Order: sequence, then C-alpha cells, then structure tokens
Amino acid sequence: MNKSINLKKRPVGTPTLSDFEFVESDVNPSISDGQLLLEAKYISVDPYLRGRMSDAKSYVPPFKLDEPISSGVVAEVIETKNDKFKKGDFVSGLLQWKEKQISTGEGLQKIDKSKAPLSAYLGIVGMTGLTAFLGLHEIGKPKKGETLVVSGAAGAVGSVVGQIGKILGLNVIGIAGTDEKIDMLKSEFGFDHGINYKTTKDMKAAIKEAAPNGVDIYFDNVGGPISDAVLFNINQFARIIICGAISVYNKTEIPMAVAVQPFLVKNSALMQGFIVSNYADKFPVAMKQLATWLGEGKLKYKETVVEGFENTPQAFLDMMDGKNKGKMIVKV
Amino acid sequence: MNKSINLKKRPVGTPTLSDFEFVESDVNPSISDGQLLLEAKYISVDPYLRGRMSDAKSYVPPFKLDEPISSGVVAEVIETKNDKFKKGDFVSGLLQWKEKQISTGEGLQKIDKSKAPLSAYLGIVGMTGLTAFLGLHEIGKPKKGETLVVSGAAGAVGSVVGQIGKILGLNVIGIAGTDEKIDMLKSEFGFDHGINYKTTKDMKAAIKEAAPNGVDIYFDNVGGPISDAVLFNINQFARIIICGAISVYNKTEIPMAVAVQPFLVKNSALMQGFIVSNYADKFPVAMKQLATWLGEGKLKYKETVVEGFENTPQAFLDMMDGKNKGKMIVKV
Repeated sequence: MNKSINLKKRPVGTPTLSDFEFVESDVNPSISDGQLLLEAKYISVDPYLRGRMSDAKSYVPPFKLDEPISSGVVAEVIETKNDKFKKGDFVSGLLQWKEKQISTGEGLQKIDKSKAPLSAYLGIVGMTGLTAFLGLHEIGKPKKGETLVVSGAAGAVGSVVGQIGKILGLNVIGIAGTDEKIDMLKSEFGFDHGINYKTTKDMKAAIKEAAPNGVDIYFDNVGGPISDAVLFNINQFARIIICGAISVYNKTEIPMAVAVQPFLVKNSALMQGFIVSNYADKFPVAMKQLATWLGEGKLKYKETVVEGFENTPQAFLDMMDGKNKGKMIVKV
Repeated sequence: MNKSINLKKRPVGTPTLSDFEFVESDVNPSISDGQLLLEAKYISVDPYLRGRMSDAKSYVPPFKLDEPISSGVVAEVIETKNDKFKKGDFVSGLLQWKEKQISTGEGLQKIDKSKAPLSAYLGIVGMTGLTAFLGLHEIGKPKKGETLVVSGAAGAVGSVVGQIGKILGLNVIGIAGTDEKIDMLKSEFGFDHGINYKTTKDMKAAIKEAAPNGVDIYFDNVGGPISDAVLFNINQFARIIICGAISVYNKTEIPMAVAVQPFLVKNSALMQGFIVSNYADKFPVAMKQLATWLGEGKLKYKETVVEGFENTPQAFLDMMDGKNKGKMIVKV
C-alpha cells in the first residue's frame, strides 16, 4: 500500500505523535498526460512546519486537517507522461508526505546527483543554504571585520551562516545548547567562539566577552531570552535577521520579551523578518556560490538522517526538541 | 546677570525640577576673533533629551553634570567678530540653555524670518519636520493607498507624519491620549481616524477597526503597550519606524513587551531605529519640500509656547507628561 502522513489535529503547544495520522491508499495511482509519478527519497523536516500546523495567520497558509503534510522532498520520477522529465530523473520541491505521489512537474527542480548527494538538495545547496546565504547578505549586509552572532548555531541554517561568516572574514560567535555542539561549531565549522546557553548563567556577559567590540549582525533563529541577551550588546547600525523563533513556536500564550524598541532607536539598528521565498530572484546566483564553496571544501554540512518514512513525525518532533545536528532529514 | 540651566543630577525615573540648577555668570562675555555672541530667542524641549540626562550608552553622549544642557535653539547674533555672520542675523543650531552664549558659528544655520516664523525653525522646517519627513520616507517607503499608524500623533513629530501621510495618499490613523487631541488630529490635521489609548479598552481591536486592511507602516514614537497592539495588525512587508520610545524613557527597570520576533518573521516585516542626524545628506531636499508644502498651506503645525527662560525645565517636564500639543517651545 502507498502510505501518506496527514495532519490529524492542530497541536496545542508541543506537538505529539497523536497529531499525525498514517493513511493508506492505492499502491500505484495512474497518471494522465502531462503528469509524473514520483517516489519520495528524502524528506526535510523544518521548524517552520510548526507554524503551518496552527491555523494562525502566517506567510504560508496552514496545513489542512486530514490532508497530507508537505515540505521539501527529493523524489525520483518513476513514471512520466510529461516531456520535460524522464524516468529516473531526480527532482526536489515542495511535495507531500507520501511514499508515491502524482505531480504536474510545476515548481519542481531537476537535480544532479553527480554534483552533490541527493540529500544535500534539501540542505546546503537547497533551502537551508539559500536561507543562510540570502538572509546574511540581503539583511545582514556583512562587512569584513564585523562581529556576527548566530543563535541556533548548530542547526541546519545556523551552521551554514557561521561558515559563510568566516568565509567573509567576520568574527563569528555561535550559540547552542550542548557542549558537544559548541565543540563541533569550533572544531568542524570554524566558529571563533561558542556559547552554551544552557550552562551559561549570564548570557549578556558571555556575549560581551566573546564580542568585546559589540555585535554588528545577529542571525536569530530562536528568539526568547537568548535574543534578549544579544540586544544588550548590539552596536550602532546593527542588523538583526529574524529567521526563526523556534523558542516560541510551541508557546500557547503570547510570549513577552525585553522591549526591543529602545535598543533599536538608541543604536539606529534594524531588525527584519526573513523568509527565503521572498528572494527567489536571487536563488540562481546564491546556489552557484554555495555549490562553488562546497566544491572548494570551504563549506561543510551536517545531516542527521533518520531512516524510514514511518519515522517522519518523530523526526519532526526530535528536530523541534534540538536533537538534530545540522539538517534533519528522513531517508524514505 | 546671564543665566544658564545646568544638569544638577541625573534623573532616576521621572525627572523633577530638582534635577536642574540655575547658574548665573557675567552679563556680557567678551568675544574673540571669529566668534559670535548669541542671545537665545526660542528653545526646543524634546523627548530625546531625557536619554542624554542618563549616562547610559546612546547615540548621543550624555550631558555632563554641572554643565548647561543643550538642545535646538534659535538665537540672534548680538555681537560678531566673524565675517560670515552680521549683527541681527538669526541662527538655529544645537546650543546651550543660556540666555547669552559665545559660538564660533560652527554647525549654525542662518535662518530667514520672512519665510517662516522663527520658532518654526525648531519645528516644522527644522528637526521636527525633517524627522517626520525622512523617517517616513527612508524607512517607511510609503506607497499611495497604504495604511499608516502614528503613535504620539498629537506630538510635534507625529502630527507632521500624519499630514505628510495624507499628502501622499495614505489611510492615516493617529493614536493620542485625550479626546481633545483626537479631535484636533481629525479636524485640523486631516487624519482619517484617531484612537484615544487612555479610554480605549481593546487597542488591538480598535486598530483593526480603523485599519481593516491591516497596517503597512507604523511610525512609532512611544513604544510600550500601544506598540504591542499595533504589532497584531501589521501586514506582510510592514515597515515600523522606531523614532522614539517615550513610554519607557522614565522606566528604571528593563521594560518588557510582546516579543516582536514572531510577528516580524511571519510578516517579513521590518523594524528600524531612526535618528534624523544619520540622514544629514538628505536635509536640503527634505527642507525644500517641507517649506513648499508649508507655503502651499498643505502642512499645518501646532506649537505650545511657554514664555520665559526660567520655565524651560518645567516645559521639558510638561512635554514628557504629554501636556503639549504639537512642538513644545520656550520663548526666552
């Protein structure tokens, strides 16, 4: 049977396995002219999916109840009645959590297995890399010698942001939640400093110590008290990229924080929400640069690969809980 | 005797008269070659001065204790040994709170009494107008038909922001603290809607009612709960100009607020601190436009003029307490 994973109910607070439901259907749906039959190979689980599970107003519409969840997926074309794709092609795109599914090919990108491993097209040369590259460049506008702080630094996006920061000649400080992650940031990804927010009592002071000249760019993946502590250390004309707020996604009450307005006005600083899809016109240039750096060995990436389609919901929960290192991916 | 007003001690929380001290000195200081002797005519009291009275890190250095406070002042040249200025010239610039003072002329602008009243050079065709015009244009990037919310709308900057918004074809909503101010916003300054935050129980709902299509631009002079309420109503790609945070300037504890990060990321919105002095290269163009609009009768302005140099500290306290309508000015 062909399995799919539906959203059964909207999570309240932290999602649980009971919010998901496995549904079975025909093994081989039949395709019409212009269509493709795809078999999922790799599925990406990402923090932003939590937002789509709620029905609050957001930049992407909420998932519908009792319908399959969708996210970034790498799939193989196993049948085709569309001239643009042939059997055996690999594609990536926003697809459903289904073992097999029909597509018109719209919005899918053919990907080249020989240039990078298939799973990398969900990460370093896919949305993850693009988010890091474009967020840092378009809002952060980095200049050599400046200081960059990255929260969620051991996550998929964060680890790439820090590496690009080093390529551009920045002083890079990563914030993460275990000593093992901090070691990895410094030894594998070349970060200058790492701060374990779970064992550090005074984050404000720790950031000041790592950034004695102040913080020029803050790439924020988490929000919450970590971001409050960074605020106290920003410089004149600081740029803060709000890429995510994973610390509050599961909150059921409206989260409070240190008021940012006095810091922004005192420092003529900028804070901007970043959604990679708004920068689609810049994808080709950015992907080329990322592929070049990857080929030159200047960019490394981590994946946490979970095996088995049936483990996709658990992989999502683990990712929300910070159990991944780098990009969390399900190998179908 | 020639009087000056010194900062005697740094205010804790709300400033009081005892934080200021009157000091007397020689009636006519003697001037050297290249210098001018100035007599103050009008003194501007502004919210940002509160920040300079503290010794916290800010965009302008703190005032020194036991030295005169300085702010925008219009003065007359009563003696000159500087070829660029003649006796009887009027100038505006950042000057000390002194009845008479010596200047080298540096940083002073000659002003033309025939084009606008002297006091207007501290307001509508001075820093106030420039702050409104440049904040709205440089960060707000207004487009005809968009919705603009202004807090502190009956204040000096706010009332100009709203009027420029109307000239540019925006739907303009002003927030202020008395019904009298709300009436003035609508009847005199042409705002489309006014909200009295002191008598409105549900600010979030009131803003939604006045802005059924959501808020595209928020010109924020106040911070605090008013700004929290606006956040819930922002649109995709909203721009928030943080021009001031008068609601927190007197706070002694770090103020908390609704966390802005989730709103910014959901809406790809931007929030930026605005300090007019960073845009000095745009002053000539902006002043020309403001003067043109003023001449055409498209811009009106309000002043609250307090008479007497000795009332300057009280005028500052009253302005911090919202007792002014429009620009608060002391006539020396």
